[in-house]
Amino acid sequence: MSADALVDRLATDRARVDARLEALFVARSGPVPRLEAAMRHGVLVGGKRLRPVLVYAAGRALGGRDEDLDAPAMALELIHAYSLVHDDLPAMDDDDLRRGQPTVHKAFDEATAILAGDALQTLAFEVLARAAHPRLPALMLTLAVAAGRDGMAAGQALDLAAVGGHPDVEALATMHGHKTGALIRAAVRLGGLVAVDEEDPRLAALEAYAEAIGLAFQIHDDVLDVTGDTATLGKVSGADAARDKPTYPALLGLDGARSRAHELVEDAVAALAPLGGAGAPLVDLARYMIERDH
Amino acid sequence: MSADALVDRLATDRARVDARLEALFVARSGPVPRLEAAMRHGVLVGGKRLRPVLVYAAGRALGGRDEDLDAPAMALELIHAYSLVHDDLPAMDDDDLRRGQPTVHKAFDEATAILAGDALQTLAFEVLARAAHPRLPALMLTLAVAAGRDGMAAGQALDLAAVGGHPDVEALATMHGHKTGALIRAAVRLGGLVAVDEEDPRLAALEAYAEAIGLAFQIHDDVLDVTGDTATLGKVSGADAARDKPTYPALLGLDGARSRAHELVEDAVAALAPLGGAGAPLVDLARYMIERDH
Repeated sequence: MSADALVDRLATDRARVDARLEALFVARSGPVPRLEAAMRHGVLVGGKRLRPVLVYAAGRALGGRDEDLDAPAMALELIHAYSLVHDDLPAMDDDDLRRGQPTVHKAFDEATAILAGDALQTLAFEVLARAAHPRLPALMLTLAVAAGRDGMAAGQALDLAAVGGHPDVEALATMHGHKTGALIRAAVRLGGLVAVDEEDPRLAALEAYAEAIGLAFQIHDDVLDVTGDTATLGKVSGADAARDKPTYPALLGLDGARSRAHELVEDAVAALAPLGGAGAPLVDLARYMIERDH
Repeated sequence: MSADALVDRLATDRARVDARLEALFVARSGPVPRLEAAMRHGVLVGGKRLRPVLVYAAGRALGGRDEDLDAPAMALELIHAYSLVHDDLPAMDDDDLRRGQPTVHKAFDEATAILAGDALQTLAFEVLARAAHPRLPALMLTLAVAAGRDGMAAGQALDLAAVGGHPDVEALATMHGHKTGALIRAAVRLGGLVAVDEEDPRLAALEAYAEAIGLAFQIHDDVLDVTGDTATLGKVSGADAARDKPTYPALLGLDGARSRAHELVEDAVAALAPLGGAGAPLVDLARYMIERDH
Protein backbone atom coordinates (compact mmCIF):
# COMPACT_ATOMS: atom_id res chain seq x y z
CA MET A 1 0.00 0.00 0.00
CA SER A 2 1.31 3.48 -0.83
CA ALA A 3 1.80 5.95 2.00
CA ASP A 4 -1.16 7.96 0.68
CA ALA A 5 -3.38 4.89 0.51
CA LEU A 6 -2.48 4.03 4.10
CA VAL A 7 -3.30 7.52 5.29
CA ASP A 8 -6.65 7.31 3.48
CA ARG A 9 -7.34 3.90 5.00
CA LEU A 10 -6.57 5.21 8.49
CA ALA A 11 -8.81 8.25 7.95
CA THR A 12 -11.64 5.99 6.79
CA ASP A 13 -11.32 3.68 9.80
CA ARG A 14 -11.15 6.62 12.21
CA ALA A 15 -14.24 8.15 10.65
CA ARG A 16 -16.00 4.78 10.91
CA VAL A 17 -15.34 4.33 14.61
CA ASP A 18 -15.94 8.01 15.35
CA ALA A 19 -19.38 7.85 13.75
CA ARG A 20 -20.26 4.81 15.84
CA LEU A 21 -18.93 6.34 19.06
CA GLU A 22 -20.83 9.54 18.29
CA ALA A 23 -24.01 7.50 17.82
CA LEU A 24 -23.71 6.30 21.43
CA PHE A 25 -24.48 9.85 22.51
CA VAL A 26 -27.09 11.12 20.06
CA ALA A 27 -30.83 10.78 20.51
CA ARG A 28 -30.34 10.17 24.22
CA SER A 29 -31.83 12.19 26.98
CA GLY A 30 -30.09 10.20 29.74
CA PRO A 31 -30.89 10.90 33.37
CA VAL A 32 -27.92 13.25 33.85
CA PRO A 33 -27.04 15.49 30.87
CA ARG A 34 -23.88 16.74 32.57
CA LEU A 35 -22.54 13.21 32.98
CA GLU A 36 -23.35 12.43 29.33
CA ALA A 37 -21.61 15.60 28.19
CA ALA A 38 -18.50 14.78 30.22
CA MET A 39 -18.39 11.21 28.83
CA ARG A 40 -18.81 12.56 25.33
CA HIS A 41 -16.03 15.09 25.89
CA GLY A 42 -13.79 12.31 27.16
CA VAL A 43 -14.23 10.08 24.15
CA LEU A 44 -15.09 12.34 21.21
CA VAL A 45 -12.66 15.23 21.46
CA GLY A 46 -9.81 14.29 19.10
CA GLY A 47 -7.72 11.14 19.39
CA LYS A 48 -5.71 9.06 16.95
CA ARG A 49 -7.98 6.01 17.33
CA LEU A 50 -4.92 3.78 17.18
CA ARG A 51 -6.61 0.89 18.96
CA PRO A 52 -9.70 0.82 16.72
CA VAL A 53 -7.46 1.08 13.66
CA LEU A 54 -5.55 -1.99 14.91
CA VAL A 55 -8.78 -3.89 15.59
CA TYR A 56 -9.93 -3.33 12.00
CA ALA A 57 -6.52 -4.08 10.46
CA ALA A 58 -5.93 -7.25 12.50
CA GLY A 59 -9.49 -8.47 12.02
CA ARG A 60 -9.45 -7.96 8.26
CA ALA A 61 -6.09 -9.72 7.99
CA LEU A 62 -7.79 -12.87 9.33
CA GLY A 63 -10.93 -12.44 7.26
CA GLY A 64 -13.16 -10.59 9.78
CA ARG A 65 -16.00 -8.39 8.56
CA ASP A 66 -15.99 -4.67 9.35
CA GLU A 67 -19.47 -4.81 10.90
CA ASP A 68 -18.29 -7.46 13.38
CA LEU A 69 -15.18 -5.43 14.21
CA ASP A 70 -17.06 -2.26 15.16
CA ALA A 71 -18.00 -3.32 18.69
CA PRO A 72 -14.49 -4.37 19.79
CA ALA A 73 -13.07 -1.26 18.12
CA MET A 74 -15.47 0.97 20.05
CA ALA A 75 -15.01 -0.95 23.30
CA LEU A 76 -11.23 -0.53 23.20
CA GLU A 77 -11.47 3.17 22.45
CA LEU A 78 -13.93 3.59 25.34
CA ILE A 79 -11.53 1.84 27.72
CA HIS A 80 -8.68 3.99 26.44
CA ALA A 81 -10.77 7.14 26.83
CA TYR A 82 -11.77 6.26 30.40
CA SER A 83 -8.13 5.70 31.30
CA LEU A 84 -7.16 9.12 29.92
CA VAL A 85 -9.94 10.88 31.83
CA HIS A 86 -8.76 9.31 35.09
CA ASP A 87 -5.06 9.64 34.24
CA ASP A 88 -5.50 13.40 33.84
CA LEU A 89 -7.09 13.88 37.29
CA PRO A 90 -5.32 16.09 39.85
CA ALA A 91 -4.50 13.07 42.04
CA MET A 92 -2.90 11.35 39.05
CA ASP A 93 -1.02 13.26 36.31
CA ASP A 94 -2.87 16.54 36.92
CA ASP A 95 -3.08 17.52 33.24
CA ASP A 96 -5.03 20.53 31.99
CA LEU A 97 -4.76 19.80 28.29
CA ARG A 98 -5.48 16.68 26.28
CA ARG A 99 -5.81 16.41 22.51
CA GLY A 100 -5.62 20.21 22.38
CA GLN A 101 -8.68 20.64 24.62
CA PRO A 102 -9.29 21.10 28.35
CA THR A 103 -9.25 17.76 30.17
CA VAL A 104 -12.59 16.51 31.49
CA HIS A 105 -12.04 17.67 35.07
CA LYS A 106 -11.09 21.14 33.77
CA ALA A 107 -14.05 21.37 31.37
CA PHE A 108 -16.43 19.98 34.03
CA ASP A 109 -15.28 19.18 37.57
CA GLU A 110 -13.34 16.48 39.34
CA ALA A 111 -16.28 14.45 40.64
CA THR A 112 -17.90 14.47 37.21
CA ALA A 113 -14.62 13.40 35.61
CA ILE A 114 -14.32 10.44 38.00
CA LEU A 115 -17.89 9.36 37.22
CA ALA A 116 -17.52 9.96 33.48
CA GLY A 117 -14.42 7.76 33.41
CA ASP A 118 -16.22 5.09 35.41
CA ALA A 119 -19.21 5.17 33.08
CA LEU A 120 -17.01 5.09 29.96
CA GLN A 121 -15.42 1.89 31.23
CA THR A 122 -18.87 0.38 31.84
CA LEU A 123 -20.01 1.49 28.39
CA ALA A 124 -17.13 -0.43 26.81
CA PHE A 125 -18.44 -3.67 28.26
CA GLU A 126 -22.02 -2.72 27.40
CA VAL A 127 -21.12 -2.14 23.75
CA LEU A 128 -19.31 -5.48 23.55
CA ALA A 129 -22.17 -7.31 25.29
CA ARG A 130 -24.76 -5.81 22.91
CA ALA A 131 -22.91 -7.13 19.87
CA ALA A 132 -23.37 -10.65 21.35
CA HIS A 133 -20.65 -12.21 19.20
CA PRO A 134 -20.54 -16.04 19.42
CA ARG A 135 -17.08 -15.75 21.00
CA LEU A 136 -18.23 -13.14 23.54
CA PRO A 137 -16.67 -14.94 26.55
CA ALA A 138 -13.21 -14.81 24.95
CA LEU A 139 -13.68 -11.24 23.70
CA MET A 140 -14.89 -10.05 27.10
CA LEU A 141 -12.11 -11.83 28.96
CA THR A 142 -9.47 -10.42 26.63
CA LEU A 143 -10.78 -6.90 27.16
CA ALA A 144 -11.10 -7.23 30.94
CA VAL A 145 -7.69 -8.80 31.49
CA ALA A 146 -6.04 -6.16 29.29
CA ALA A 147 -7.77 -3.29 31.09
CA GLY A 148 -7.50 -4.47 34.68
CA ARG A 149 -5.06 -5.23 37.46
CA ASP A 150 -2.86 -7.41 35.22
CA GLY A 151 -2.89 -4.92 32.39
CA MET A 152 -3.55 -1.22 31.97
CA ALA A 153 -4.54 -0.44 35.57
CA ALA A 154 -1.34 -2.11 36.78
CA GLY A 155 0.66 -0.08 34.26
CA GLN A 156 -0.91 3.09 35.54
CA ALA A 157 0.05 2.16 39.10
CA LEU A 158 3.60 1.30 38.00
CA ASP A 159 3.78 4.65 36.21
CA LEU A 160 2.75 6.56 39.33
CA ALA A 161 5.31 4.64 41.37
CA ALA A 162 8.04 5.44 38.83
CA VAL A 163 7.71 9.24 38.91
CA GLY A 164 10.83 10.70 40.47
CA GLY A 165 12.45 7.24 40.57
CA HIS A 166 15.13 6.00 38.21
CA PRO A 167 13.89 2.85 36.48
CA ASP A 168 16.14 1.14 33.94
CA VAL A 169 15.12 0.34 30.37
CA GLU A 170 13.66 -3.00 31.43
CA ALA A 171 11.49 -1.50 34.18
CA LEU A 172 10.31 1.17 31.77
CA ALA A 173 9.36 -1.50 29.21
CA THR A 174 7.44 -3.40 31.90
CA MET A 175 5.52 -0.27 32.83
CA HIS A 176 4.65 0.60 29.23
CA GLY A 177 3.95 -3.04 28.42
CA HIS A 178 1.14 -2.84 30.96
CA LYS A 179 0.06 0.78 30.64
CA THR A 180 -0.28 0.99 26.86
CA GLY A 181 0.94 -2.37 25.56
CA ALA A 182 -1.85 -4.43 27.12
CA LEU A 183 -4.61 -2.60 25.24
CA ILE A 184 -2.64 -2.62 21.99
CA ARG A 185 -2.20 -6.40 22.25
CA ALA A 186 -5.88 -6.65 23.12
CA ALA A 187 -6.75 -4.65 19.99
CA VAL A 188 -5.18 -7.14 17.59
CA ARG A 189 -6.42 -10.11 19.60
CA LEU A 190 -9.99 -8.82 19.67
CA GLY A 191 -9.84 -8.13 15.94
CA GLY A 192 -8.49 -11.63 15.36
CA LEU A 193 -10.99 -13.33 17.66
CA VAL A 194 -13.86 -11.85 15.69
CA ALA A 195 -12.63 -13.93 12.74
CA VAL A 196 -10.99 -17.07 14.18
CA ASP A 197 -11.01 -19.38 17.20
CA GLU A 198 -8.75 -18.93 20.21
CA GLU A 199 -6.61 -21.85 19.06
CA ASP A 200 -5.64 -20.24 15.75
CA PRO A 201 -1.85 -19.72 15.77
CA ARG A 202 -2.18 -16.46 13.86
CA LEU A 203 -3.53 -14.87 17.06
CA ALA A 204 -0.15 -15.42 18.71
CA ALA A 205 1.57 -13.90 15.67
CA LEU A 206 -0.69 -10.85 15.93
CA GLU A 207 0.08 -10.52 19.63
CA ALA A 208 3.84 -10.69 19.07
CA TYR A 209 3.39 -8.01 16.41
CA ALA A 210 1.36 -5.88 18.79
CA GLU A 211 3.83 -6.32 21.62
CA ALA A 212 6.60 -4.89 19.45
CA ILE A 213 4.64 -2.04 17.90
CA GLY A 214 3.16 -1.13 21.27
CA LEU A 215 6.61 -0.47 22.66
CA ALA A 216 7.78 1.20 19.43
CA PHE A 217 4.75 3.46 19.62
CA GLN A 218 5.59 4.43 23.18
CA ILE A 219 9.24 5.12 22.41
CA HIS A 220 8.16 7.27 19.48
CA ASP A 221 5.76 9.11 21.81
CA ASP A 222 8.64 9.85 24.17
CA VAL A 223 10.75 11.03 21.21
CA LEU A 224 7.92 13.32 20.07
CA ASP A 225 7.66 14.74 23.59
CA VAL A 226 11.25 15.93 23.15
CA THR A 227 11.21 16.92 19.48
CA GLY A 228 7.59 17.94 18.84
CA ASP A 229 5.90 21.23 19.54
CA THR A 230 2.80 21.75 21.66
CA ALA A 231 0.56 22.82 18.76
CA THR A 232 1.26 19.68 16.69
CA LEU A 233 1.09 17.29 19.64
CA GLY A 234 -2.12 18.73 21.09
CA LYS A 235 -0.52 18.37 24.52
CA VAL A 236 2.27 20.20 26.27
CA SER A 237 5.63 19.17 24.77
CA GLY A 238 8.50 18.61 27.17
CA ALA A 239 5.94 17.62 29.80
CA ASP A 240 7.67 14.33 30.63
CA ALA A 241 11.02 15.95 31.41
CA ALA A 242 9.39 18.78 33.36
CA ARG A 243 7.62 16.16 35.51
CA ASP A 244 10.78 14.09 35.95
CA LYS A 245 9.07 11.15 34.22
CA PRO A 246 11.45 8.46 33.03
CA THR A 247 11.58 8.31 29.21
CA TYR A 248 13.45 6.37 26.53
CA PRO A 249 15.34 9.39 25.20
CA ALA A 250 16.52 10.08 28.76
CA LEU A 251 17.77 6.49 29.12
CA LEU A 252 18.99 5.73 25.59
CA GLY A 253 19.61 9.16 24.11
CA LEU A 254 17.48 10.49 21.25
CA ASP A 255 19.28 8.49 18.55
CA GLY A 256 19.34 5.37 20.70
CA ALA A 257 15.59 5.66 21.29
CA ARG A 258 14.92 6.15 17.57
CA SER A 259 16.96 3.14 16.56
CA ARG A 260 15.30 0.98 19.24
CA ALA A 261 11.91 1.95 17.82
CA HIS A 262 13.09 0.94 14.33
CA GLU A 263 14.35 -2.42 15.57
CA LEU A 264 11.03 -3.10 17.25
CA VAL A 265 9.12 -2.32 14.08
CA GLU A 266 11.30 -4.83 12.20
CA ASP A 267 10.57 -7.39 14.95
CA ALA A 268 6.87 -6.65 14.49
CA VAL A 269 7.12 -7.18 10.74
CA ALA A 270 8.97 -10.47 11.23
CA ALA A 271 6.29 -11.69 13.65
CA LEU A 272 3.68 -11.37 10.90
CA ALA A 273 5.28 -14.06 8.71
CA PRO A 274 2.55 -16.66 9.48
CA LEU A 275 -0.03 -14.30 7.96
CA GLY A 276 1.67 -14.19 4.55
CA GLY A 277 0.43 -11.53 2.15
CA ALA A 278 -2.60 -10.83 4.33
CA GLY A 279 -0.26 -9.14 6.81
CA ALA A 280 0.85 -6.38 4.41
CA PRO A 281 -1.47 -3.65 5.74
CA LEU A 282 -0.25 -4.40 9.27
CA VAL A 283 3.34 -4.01 8.06
CA ASP A 284 2.50 -0.60 6.61
CA LEU A 285 0.79 0.38 9.84
CA ALA A 286 3.81 -0.61 11.94
CA ARG A 287 6.15 1.52 9.83
CA TYR A 288 3.72 4.44 9.87
CA MET A 289 3.58 4.40 13.64
CA ILE A 290 7.14 5.55 14.14
CA GLU A 291 6.95 8.12 11.35
CA ARG A 292 3.92 10.07 12.62
CA ASP A 293 4.56 13.58 13.96
CA HIS A 294 1.80 13.55 16.63
CA MET B 1 -38.34 -19.62 57.58
CA SER B 2 -37.76 -18.63 61.22
CA ALA B 3 -35.85 -15.44 61.92
CA ASP B 4 -32.93 -17.51 63.19
CA ALA B 5 -32.92 -19.70 60.09
CA LEU B 6 -32.89 -16.61 57.88
CA VAL B 7 -29.98 -15.11 59.78
CA ASP B 8 -28.10 -18.42 59.41
CA ARG B 9 -28.89 -18.54 55.69
CA LEU B 10 -27.63 -14.97 55.23
CA ALA B 11 -24.44 -15.74 57.16
CA THR B 12 -23.84 -18.83 55.01
CA ASP B 13 -24.33 -16.91 51.77
CA ARG B 14 -22.09 -14.08 52.94
CA ALA B 15 -19.39 -16.55 53.91
CA ARG B 16 -19.74 -18.24 50.52
CA VAL B 17 -19.27 -15.06 48.48
CA ASP B 18 -16.58 -13.77 50.85
CA ALA B 19 -14.54 -16.93 50.38
CA ARG B 20 -14.80 -16.58 46.61
CA LEU B 21 -13.93 -12.89 46.65
CA GLU B 22 -11.00 -13.63 48.95
CA ALA B 23 -9.79 -16.28 46.50
CA LEU B 24 -9.47 -13.58 43.83
CA PHE B 25 -6.60 -12.15 45.84
CA VAL B 26 -4.73 -15.15 47.22
CA ALA B 27 -1.86 -16.91 45.48
CA ARG B 28 -1.32 -13.87 43.28
CA SER B 29 1.84 -11.89 43.00
CA GLY B 30 0.34 -9.33 40.60
CA PRO B 31 2.55 -6.68 39.04
CA VAL B 32 1.69 -4.04 41.66
CA PRO B 33 1.20 -5.32 45.24
CA ARG B 34 0.00 -1.91 46.43
CA LEU B 35 -2.80 -1.85 43.87
CA GLU B 36 -3.81 -5.41 44.81
CA ALA B 37 -3.83 -4.49 48.50
CA ALA B 38 -6.00 -1.44 47.86
CA MET B 39 -8.47 -3.48 45.77
CA ARG B 40 -8.59 -6.10 48.47
CA HIS B 41 -9.19 -3.46 51.13
CA GLY B 42 -11.99 -2.01 49.00
CA VAL B 43 -13.86 -5.28 48.62
CA LEU B 44 -12.95 -7.44 51.61
CA VAL B 45 -13.22 -5.13 54.60
CA GLY B 46 -16.70 -5.74 55.99
CA GLY B 47 -19.91 -5.27 54.04
CA LYS B 48 -23.40 -6.71 54.30
CA ARG B 49 -23.17 -8.48 50.92
CA LEU B 50 -26.78 -7.58 50.25
CA ARG B 51 -26.42 -7.87 46.48
CA PRO B 52 -24.83 -11.35 46.52
CA VAL B 53 -27.44 -12.50 49.03
CA LEU B 54 -30.13 -11.34 46.60
CA VAL B 55 -28.44 -13.07 43.65
CA TYR B 56 -28.46 -16.38 45.53
CA ALA B 57 -32.00 -15.99 46.85
CA ALA B 58 -33.48 -14.94 43.50
CA GLY B 59 -31.55 -17.57 41.57
CA ARG B 60 -32.56 -20.40 43.91
CA ALA B 61 -36.20 -19.29 43.77
CA LEU B 62 -36.13 -20.02 40.00
CA GLY B 63 -34.14 -23.25 40.35
CA GLY B 64 -30.60 -21.92 39.80
CA ARG B 65 -27.61 -23.80 41.22
CA ASP B 66 -25.36 -22.12 43.78
CA GLU B 67 -22.22 -22.79 41.72
CA ASP B 68 -23.73 -20.93 38.76
CA LEU B 69 -24.77 -18.03 40.99
CA ASP B 70 -21.30 -17.39 42.41
CA ALA B 71 -19.96 -15.39 39.45
CA PRO B 72 -22.87 -12.92 39.23
CA ALA B 73 -22.86 -12.60 43.04
CA MET B 74 -19.15 -11.75 43.02
CA ALA B 75 -19.47 -9.45 40.01
CA LEU B 76 -22.20 -7.39 41.65
CA GLU B 77 -20.26 -7.08 44.89
CA LEU B 78 -17.16 -5.98 42.95
CA ILE B 79 -19.18 -3.29 41.15
CA HIS B 80 -20.66 -2.18 44.47
CA ALA B 81 -17.20 -2.11 46.08
CA TYR B 82 -15.72 -0.06 43.23
CA SER B 83 -18.54 2.47 43.56
CA LEU B 84 -17.92 2.84 47.30
CA VAL B 85 -14.18 3.36 46.81
CA HIS B 86 -14.83 6.16 44.30
CA ASP B 87 -17.81 7.55 46.24
CA ASP B 88 -15.59 8.05 49.28
CA LEU B 89 -12.95 10.07 47.39
CA PRO B 90 -12.27 13.68 48.45
CA ALA B 91 -13.80 15.01 45.21
CA MET B 92 -16.97 13.01 45.89
CA ASP B 93 -18.31 12.40 49.42
CA ASP B 94 -14.91 12.79 51.11
CA ASP B 95 -15.45 10.03 53.66
CA ASP B 96 -12.74 8.82 56.03
CA LEU B 97 -14.56 5.81 57.42
CA ARG B 98 -16.37 2.95 55.70
CA ARG B 99 -17.52 -0.28 57.29
CA GLY B 100 -15.67 0.79 60.45
CA GLN B 101 -12.32 1.02 58.64
CA PRO B 102 -10.36 3.79 56.92
CA THR B 103 -11.58 4.33 53.36
CA VAL B 104 -9.21 3.23 50.58
CA HIS B 105 -7.81 6.70 49.87
CA LYS B 106 -7.12 7.15 53.59
CA ALA B 107 -5.51 3.72 54.01
CA PHE B 108 -3.52 4.16 50.78
CA ASP B 109 -3.65 7.36 48.72
CA GLU B 110 -6.02 9.07 46.34
CA ALA B 111 -4.42 7.95 43.08
CA THR B 112 -4.31 4.34 44.29
CA ALA B 113 -7.96 4.56 45.33
CA ILE B 114 -8.98 5.80 41.88
CA LEU B 115 -7.06 2.95 40.22
CA ALA B 116 -8.27 0.34 42.71
CA GLY B 117 -11.87 1.35 42.03
CA ASP B 118 -11.24 1.21 38.29
CA ALA B 119 -9.67 -2.23 38.54
CA LEU B 120 -12.46 -3.55 40.78
CA GLN B 121 -14.97 -2.57 38.12
CA THR B 122 -12.92 -4.37 35.45
CA LEU B 123 -12.59 -7.41 37.70
CA ALA B 124 -16.38 -7.65 37.95
CA PHE B 125 -16.61 -8.12 34.18
CA GLU B 126 -13.62 -10.46 34.18
CA VAL B 127 -15.24 -12.72 36.79
CA LEU B 128 -18.48 -12.83 34.84
CA ALA B 129 -16.67 -13.50 31.55
CA ARG B 130 -14.66 -16.37 33.07
CA ALA B 131 -17.82 -18.14 34.18
CA ALA B 132 -18.84 -18.20 30.49
CA HIS B 133 -22.51 -18.90 31.24
CA PRO B 134 -24.58 -19.74 28.12
CA ARG B 135 -26.57 -16.53 28.71
CA LEU B 136 -23.44 -14.40 29.11
CA PRO B 137 -24.61 -11.68 26.68
CA ALA B 138 -27.77 -11.06 28.75
CA LEU B 139 -25.88 -11.30 32.06
CA MET B 140 -23.18 -8.90 30.88
CA LEU B 141 -25.67 -6.45 29.45
CA THR B 142 -27.73 -6.48 32.65
CA LEU B 143 -24.65 -5.77 34.74
CA ALA B 144 -23.32 -3.04 32.46
CA VAL B 145 -26.62 -1.21 32.07
CA ALA B 146 -27.21 -1.33 35.83
CA ALA B 147 -23.73 -0.02 36.62
CA GLY B 148 -23.37 2.64 33.94
CA ARG B 149 -24.76 5.95 32.76
CA ASP B 150 -28.37 4.75 32.90
CA GLY B 151 -27.94 3.18 36.32
CA MET B 152 -25.59 3.52 39.24
CA ALA B 153 -23.21 6.07 37.72
CA ALA B 154 -26.17 8.29 36.85
CA GLY B 155 -27.47 7.93 40.40
CA GLN B 156 -24.12 8.98 41.75
CA ALA B 157 -24.17 12.07 39.53
CA LEU B 158 -27.75 12.86 40.60
CA ASP B 159 -26.68 12.49 44.22
CA LEU B 160 -23.81 14.95 43.81
CA ALA B 161 -26.15 17.40 42.11
CA ALA B 162 -28.69 17.07 44.95
CA VAL B 163 -26.37 17.99 47.84
CA GLY B 164 -27.44 21.32 49.24
CA GLY B 165 -30.53 21.32 46.98
CA HIS B 166 -34.05 20.53 48.09
CA PRO B 167 -35.37 17.62 46.04
CA ASP B 168 -38.89 16.34 46.71
CA VAL B 169 -39.73 12.73 47.54
CA GLU B 170 -40.05 11.85 43.86
CA ALA B 171 -36.65 13.29 42.94
CA LEU B 172 -35.10 11.49 45.89
CA ALA B 173 -36.65 8.20 44.74
CA THR B 174 -35.29 8.76 41.22
CA MET B 175 -31.81 9.34 42.60
CA HIS B 176 -31.87 6.26 44.83
CA GLY B 177 -33.56 4.22 42.10
CA HIS B 178 -30.42 4.79 40.04
CA LYS B 179 -27.75 4.97 42.73
CA THR B 180 -28.64 1.83 44.68
CA GLY B 181 -31.83 0.51 43.07
CA ALA B 182 -30.25 -0.31 39.72
CA LEU B 183 -27.76 -2.79 41.21
CA ILE B 184 -30.38 -4.31 43.48
CA ARG B 185 -32.67 -4.91 40.51
CA ALA B 186 -29.66 -6.29 38.62
CA ALA B 187 -28.95 -8.68 41.50
CA VAL B 188 -32.31 -10.44 41.26
CA ARG B 189 -32.29 -10.34 37.46
CA LEU B 190 -28.80 -11.85 37.26
CA GLY B 191 -29.78 -14.53 39.73
CA GLY B 192 -32.91 -15.26 37.72
CA LEU B 193 -31.10 -15.24 34.35
CA VAL B 194 -28.76 -17.95 35.57
CA ALA B 195 -31.81 -20.21 35.81
CA VAL B 196 -34.29 -19.07 33.16
CA ASP B 197 -34.52 -17.32 29.77
CA GLU B 198 -35.02 -13.59 29.36
CA GLU B 199 -38.62 -14.18 28.34
CA ASP B 200 -39.63 -15.84 31.61
CA PRO B 201 -42.27 -13.64 33.29
CA ARG B 202 -40.88 -14.43 36.74
CA LEU B 203 -37.93 -12.16 35.94
CA ALA B 204 -40.28 -9.18 35.79
CA ALA B 205 -41.80 -10.25 39.11
CA LEU B 206 -38.33 -10.41 40.64
CA GLU B 207 -37.52 -6.96 39.30
CA ALA B 208 -40.71 -5.43 40.71
CA TYR B 209 -39.81 -7.04 44.04
CA ALA B 210 -36.29 -5.62 43.85
CA GLU B 211 -37.50 -2.18 42.89
CA ALA B 212 -39.60 -2.03 46.07
CA ILE B 213 -37.06 -3.52 48.45
CA GLY B 214 -34.29 -1.35 46.98
CA LEU B 215 -36.16 1.78 47.95
CA ALA B 216 -37.25 0.31 51.30
CA PHE B 217 -33.61 -0.54 52.00
CA GLN B 218 -32.56 3.03 51.26
CA ILE B 219 -35.28 4.56 53.40
CA HIS B 220 -34.27 2.26 56.24
CA ASP B 221 -30.64 3.33 55.72
CA ASP B 222 -31.70 6.96 56.08
CA VAL B 223 -33.66 6.06 59.22
CA LEU B 224 -30.63 4.29 60.68
CA ASP B 225 -28.49 7.35 59.95
CA VAL B 226 -30.78 9.26 62.33
CA THR B 227 -31.45 6.59 64.95
CA GLY B 228 -28.32 4.42 64.87
CA ASP B 229 -25.00 4.98 66.57
CA THR B 230 -21.61 5.12 64.88
CA ALA B 231 -20.28 1.92 66.44
CA THR B 232 -23.22 -0.21 65.23
CA LEU B 233 -23.37 1.38 61.79
CA GLY B 234 -19.64 1.20 61.10
CA LYS B 235 -19.89 4.68 59.63
CA VAL B 236 -20.47 8.09 61.14
CA SER B 237 -24.14 8.41 62.19
CA GLY B 238 -25.87 11.71 61.49
CA ALA B 239 -23.52 12.16 58.51
CA ASP B 240 -26.36 12.82 56.06
CA ALA B 241 -27.81 15.69 58.07
CA ALA B 242 -24.38 17.16 58.79
CA ARG B 243 -23.70 17.21 55.04
CA ASP B 244 -27.13 18.66 54.22
CA LYS B 245 -27.95 15.54 52.19
CA PRO B 246 -31.63 15.13 51.43
CA THR B 247 -33.10 12.12 53.28
CA TYR B 248 -36.48 10.45 53.72
CA PRO B 249 -36.77 11.25 57.43
CA ALA B 250 -36.13 14.91 56.57
CA LEU B 251 -38.90 14.86 53.94
CA LEU B 252 -41.43 12.50 55.54
CA GLY B 253 -40.56 12.61 59.23
CA LEU B 254 -39.16 9.58 61.03
CA ASP B 255 -42.52 7.83 61.40
CA GLY B 256 -43.52 8.69 57.85
CA ALA B 257 -40.28 7.23 56.53
CA ARG B 258 -40.72 4.06 58.57
CA SER B 259 -44.26 3.50 57.38
CA ARG B 260 -43.26 4.15 53.75
CA ALA B 261 -40.58 1.45 54.10
CA HIS B 262 -43.20 -0.97 55.45
CA GLU B 263 -45.59 -0.25 52.57
CA LEU B 264 -42.81 -0.88 50.09
CA VAL B 265 -41.97 -4.21 51.66
CA GLU B 266 -45.63 -5.24 51.34
CA ASP B 267 -45.52 -4.17 47.66
CA ALA B 268 -42.42 -6.32 47.25
CA VAL B 269 -44.14 -9.32 48.80
CA ALA B 270 -47.18 -8.84 46.55
CA ALA B 271 -44.95 -8.71 43.47
CA LEU B 272 -43.67 -12.21 44.24
CA ALA B 273 -47.11 -13.83 43.74
CA PRO B 274 -46.12 -15.42 40.37
CA LEU B 275 -43.37 -17.39 42.15
CA GLY B 276 -45.77 -19.13 44.53
CA GLY B 277 -44.17 -20.95 47.46
CA ALA B 278 -40.71 -20.65 45.89
CA GLY B 279 -40.80 -16.95 46.77
CA ALA B 280 -40.97 -17.49 50.54
CA PRO B 281 -37.26 -16.92 51.27
CA LEU B 282 -37.43 -13.67 49.30
CA VAL B 283 -40.40 -12.59 51.42
CA ASP B 284 -38.40 -13.24 54.59
CA LEU B 285 -35.48 -11.31 53.15
CA ALA B 286 -37.64 -8.30 52.34
CA ARG B 287 -39.02 -8.14 55.88
CA TYR B 288 -35.55 -8.58 57.37
CA MET B 289 -34.21 -5.65 55.38
CA ILE B 290 -36.19 -3.04 57.24
CA GLU B 291 -35.60 -4.64 60.61
CA ARG B 292 -31.79 -4.71 60.52
CA ASP B 293 -29.96 -2.31 62.86
CA HIS B 294 -26.95 -1.69 60.55
